[in-house]
Amino acid sequence: MLRVAVAGASGYMGAEALRLLCVHPRLQLVAVTSERLAGERLDRVFPHLRGLSNLVFTELDAARLSDEADLVFLALPHMESQRAVPVLRKLGRKVIDLSADYRLRDGALYATWYKADHIDAAGLGEAVYGLPELHRKAISGASLVANPGCYAMGAILATAPLLKSGLGRAEGIVIDGKSGVTGAGAQGRKIDPMYLYTEANENVQAYGITTHRHTPEMEQELSALAGAPVVVGFTPHLVPLNRGIFTTASVPLAREVERRPPARPTSWPSTANFTRASLSCACCPKASGRRRAR
Amino acid sequence: MLRVAVAGASGYMGAEALRLLCVHPRLQLVAVTSERLAGERLDRVFPHLRGLSNLVFTELDAARLSDEADLVFLALPHMESQRAVPVLRKLGRKVIDLSADYRLRDGALYATWYKADHIDAAGLGEAVYGLPELHRKAISGASLVANPGCYAMGAILATAPLLKSGLGRAEGIVIDGKSGVTGAGAQGRKIDPMYLYTEANENVQAYGITTHRHTPEMEQELSALAGAPVVVGFTPHLVPLNRGIFTTASVPLAREVERRPPARPTSWPSTANFTRASLSCACCPKASGRRRAR
Amino acid sequence: MLRVAVAGASGYMGAEALRLLCVHPRLQLVAVTSERLAGERLDRVFPHLRGLSNLVFTELDAARLSDEADLVFLALPHMESQRAVPVLRKLGRKVIDLSADYRLRDGALYATWYKADHIDAAGLGEAVYGLPELHRKAISGASLVANPGCYAMGAILATAPLLKSGLGRAEGIVIDGKSGVTGAGAQGRKIDPMYLYTEANENVQAYGITTHRHTPEMEQELSALAGAPVVVGFTPHLVPLNRGIFTTASVPLAREVERRPPARPTSWPSTANFTRASLSCACCPKASGRRRAR
Amino acid sequence: MLRVAVAGASGYMGAEALRLLCVHPRLQLVAVTSERLAGERLDRVFPHLRGLSNLVFTELDAARLSDEADLVFLALPHMESQRAVPVLRKLGRKVIDLSADYRLRDGALYATWYKADHIDAAGLGEAVYGLPELHRKAISGASLVANPGCYAMGAILATAPLLKSGLGRAEGIVIDGKSGVTGAGAQGRKIDPMYLYTEANENVQAYGITTHRHTPEMEQELSALAGAPVVVGFTPHLVPLNRGIFTTASVPLAREVERRPPARPTSWPSTANFTRASLSCACCPKASGRRRAR
Repeated sequence: MLRVAVAGASGYMGAEALRLLCVHPRLQLVAVTSERLAGERLDRVFPHLRGLSNLVFTELDAARLSDEADLVFLALPHMESQRAVPVLRKLGRKVIDLSADYRLRDGALYATWYKADHIDAAGLGEAVYGLPELHRKAISGASLVANPGCYAMGAILATAPLLKSGLGRAEGIVIDGKSGVTGAGAQGRKIDPMYLYTEANENVQAYGITTHRHTPEMEQELSALAGAPVVVGFTPHLVPLNRGIFTTASVPLAREVERRPPARPTSWPSTANFTRASLSCACCPKASGRRRAR
Repeated sequence: MLRVAVAGASGYMGAEALRLLCVHPRLQLVAVTSERLAGERLDRVFPHLRGLSNLVFTELDAARLSDEADLVFLALPHMESQRAVPVLRKLGRKVIDLSADYRLRDGALYATWYKADHIDAAGLGEAVYGLPELHRKAISGASLVANPGCYAMGAILATAPLLKSGLGRAEGIVIDGKSGVTGAGAQGRKIDPMYLYTEANENVQAYGITTHRHTPEMEQELSALAGAPVVVGFTPHLVPLNRGIFTTASVPLAREVERRPPARPTSWPSTANFTRASLSCACCPKASGRRRAR
Repeated sequence: MLRVAVAGASGYMGAEALRLLCVHPRLQLVAVTSERLAGERLDRVFPHLRGLSNLVFTELDAARLSDEADLVFLALPHMESQRAVPVLRKLGRKVIDLSADYRLRDGALYATWYKADHIDAAGLGEAVYGLPELHRKAISGASLVANPGCYAMGAILATAPLLKSGLGRAEGIVIDGKSGVTGAGAQGRKIDPMYLYTEANENVQAYGITTHRHTPEMEQELSALAGAPVVVGFTPHLVPLNRGIFTTASVPLAREVERRPPARPTSWPSTANFTRASLSCACCPKASGRRRAR
Repeated sequence: MLRVAVAGASGYMGAEALRLLCVHPRLQLVAVTSERLAGERLDRVFPHLRGLSNLVFTELDAARLSDEADLVFLALPHMESQRAVPVLRKLGRKVIDLSADYRLRDGALYATWYKADHIDAAGLGEAVYGLPELHRKAISGASLVANPGCYAMGAILATAPLLKSGLGRAEGIVIDGKSGVTGAGAQGRKIDPMYLYTEANENVQAYGITTHRHTPEMEQELSALAGAPVVVGFTPHLVPLNRGIFTTASVPLAREVERRPPARPTSWPSTANFTRASLSCACCPKASGRRRAR
């Protein structure tokens, strides 16, 4: 049994990680941390875990976590992850970081989008972008895995087959992301009115237009696949559901294709343990002027 | 044209009042106040009112409101209404108070439920409970109308016909109220997590069990109708919708009735301008042991 | 590994059973039947099960199911279950019936509520009502388990502790049930407009007032607990959520109790594998006239 | 008072028209037709109209409607409108057609998208596309107005200012439409499972990809504005809300623009009686490679 800990487990992301870890046959949950909940019983805070764990939340102490766990999930706010990661790695622990801190390979790009310098250049250099459909082998050997942003994962899974196969053009890609509310920061420290039931219900809200921080993740991964710089036009939306992302990707075709949609251009390698990818791809059936695959 | 003002118009209740007043053929909206929004244009804050008003929010000044308006709606928090009302009335203005401050006729009852003494005993004595189905004539002559609580209105409309007609028994009434989120305080000063989309969606939440402040309103009005003290068991619930109240009232029957549900026991007087009452009433069809009307 | 089959697996109930069975460590799903889907692959119909099963839907053939499986779940419409059960039991198979066919012990009561005679009196006599909190031992030895109705389960779990402990009175119980839409027949053969998104969303709908068929289940189980006939006033509601039941039970107290709510009157035996019971119980704090526990 | 009738008033579109017409100060609702509801009282079918009309639904008889009304709204299925319109116009009546029958100016285009020849070429030639922001003057003099498709209206309002001003490029426009369920055919003759609460709730569904019939409307109106053929890539989605359309339009810029978003490029003429247009327009602030306005 691998011993695992979850740091920063008070939000929706941490809670979901705990739910999965508590019933995992090969992992043993040994520690949970939360500044806000330190001292409280896990099964009081999350009654659906009653009977599955008798842990108590503690404050984050990277050195102690290294004693207790072989693998640590970090569900911390960005900037806090990059403080904890070097300590954990120095003590030989593997880390899966759920924050945004290790997703961008380029420190300068990080500084541009996150308005702060990254303090763990070494970690940034070694982190693997944790999308098994693209980096399965590297993930399995990694000591530091950066969990992808939610919109980024949707956008990459939808467009990668077209770019990889050469059917899609790197220019003019438009990504329309629709996210449930748990994924959009609803349980952060400050409550924004946009997350109130009465504002989000019966409503659709676009936000972060041209500025959402998942954009450079998409461009980093898609550029690597296309072998050329990819710029995406990405618009995130809050839609009235609790969870899930729906991605509509519009990719111009690189060449004339038959009118009938091609069979799924590139199959994803089997990743049944993590995702069930259901891609549908349509080419416009009518006019030669329409050369978009969606 | 009657000149009307709305004080405390920043919440959902005030916004709804403004929407109705802006298109009313016989009323002219002349002033809106809000501590938080003073100085802002009404049609910026509420874009759906664009083209319907060019008012600017001001701070609440009861004396000035009395100059500007013939009739003032108060959508203030309770305790604040009772400070403004005496000033407005002294200056000869009519007031419709949307807060809870003037609903209970008995000052001691107010103190019990609201944990504070009422400072306007005179107003309390003269206020009319603004439910037109029960107090139409008194309302039309009143200088101070206390708008009913949302749950109270639902409960009273549902049970009054049975109590008035003598078919219902005063003992053992159970009221189950289900409210949309705008009605349940979602836009107050502090945001409670229960009003977050992610908490209210796909959820039903009971709250204020045995302690909700609309309870004494129900009992006050129903006792008057029954001619005897009525005690109700009331449970409010937050259900995932924006607006509306659904009331399920269980009233024990005072005597054996025919198995077929009686025709609507007491018709409401026509109140088409305000409400469209759709009561349905069912008696249990099967056993004599079942004597509840619902 | 126990071999299990699910008959009638095309609805929401069957789909949920399949989801749980497909990942169960000690059960092996060996057959699924559906008239409508016979010949189709399970993982095409339910893509979330892709990679977890390669079964194909067949038509229901009780004899063949008996060959293939040790245990059969029936997610059939009522009346069809009672045709399949005798065949399966004669061939030595255990059955868990998710329909309403075996929940009422009394055939005459069945005929009254379901407007048809029951054709398997023997089965009816031996079936165990499958609520582990009440019948755990009997269930573990049973060859035929009748899964409780959804509203019935909510109502019984909420009121049983009060009746068992003698704190609650058998007369005057009012049950208000609020169900998500999957549980209320949304995927039956005829689509009722009440299940359309546009009708159920932003709405609360009471239905089956005094006539809902889960009522006699509640009364059967609660009467047994109370040692006296219990009549409940039950109103079911459709609320806008996909799954879950919220039960508000109002039980008159049998005697004066302290003002402070009693500690949870009777703890449920640990049933962690099946349910996480979260009961809250409140007595009205104010007046002796209020003697309801909720 | 202009006398108006609504034909085909049983669906959500007709119901909304009735709601507006019943309280309109200058119109008098004189007739409502519905095959399905003929003989039923309007205020029984739509209780929210109680007290506002005592009409009874009749069957559609274009000649009789011409006697009764000066202006007829047609909320009929497409293909049925083009049968009624010539009769009504011959008898001198004005028609506002809410169906799709008169939106496309080109009969051949109609035949391509609707798989049937149009039988009223004369009407098609004279109909005015009823978008007041573009055709206000023509509408006011028209005898036949074709109400725009919902997605088309959203897409045109969002992109027209950029095309009209020359800031936007005609090539590469991507429209992502998100519609509530009433607008997406939920109350048609056959109920599609996609409109069930349990399927639409907590879900986002793309449909009609590259084939939705509002596409040629967008292209017709935008081409006229751009003075060149415009081809749009349009993807409609069903999102879990009752009403409303949210349009995300991505329009490549025709030339380099300043980084700061331009002030709203073209103001809509005041159309306060019909719509409150709230356009927001953002140019990507960062890289010259990003030249999309959204």
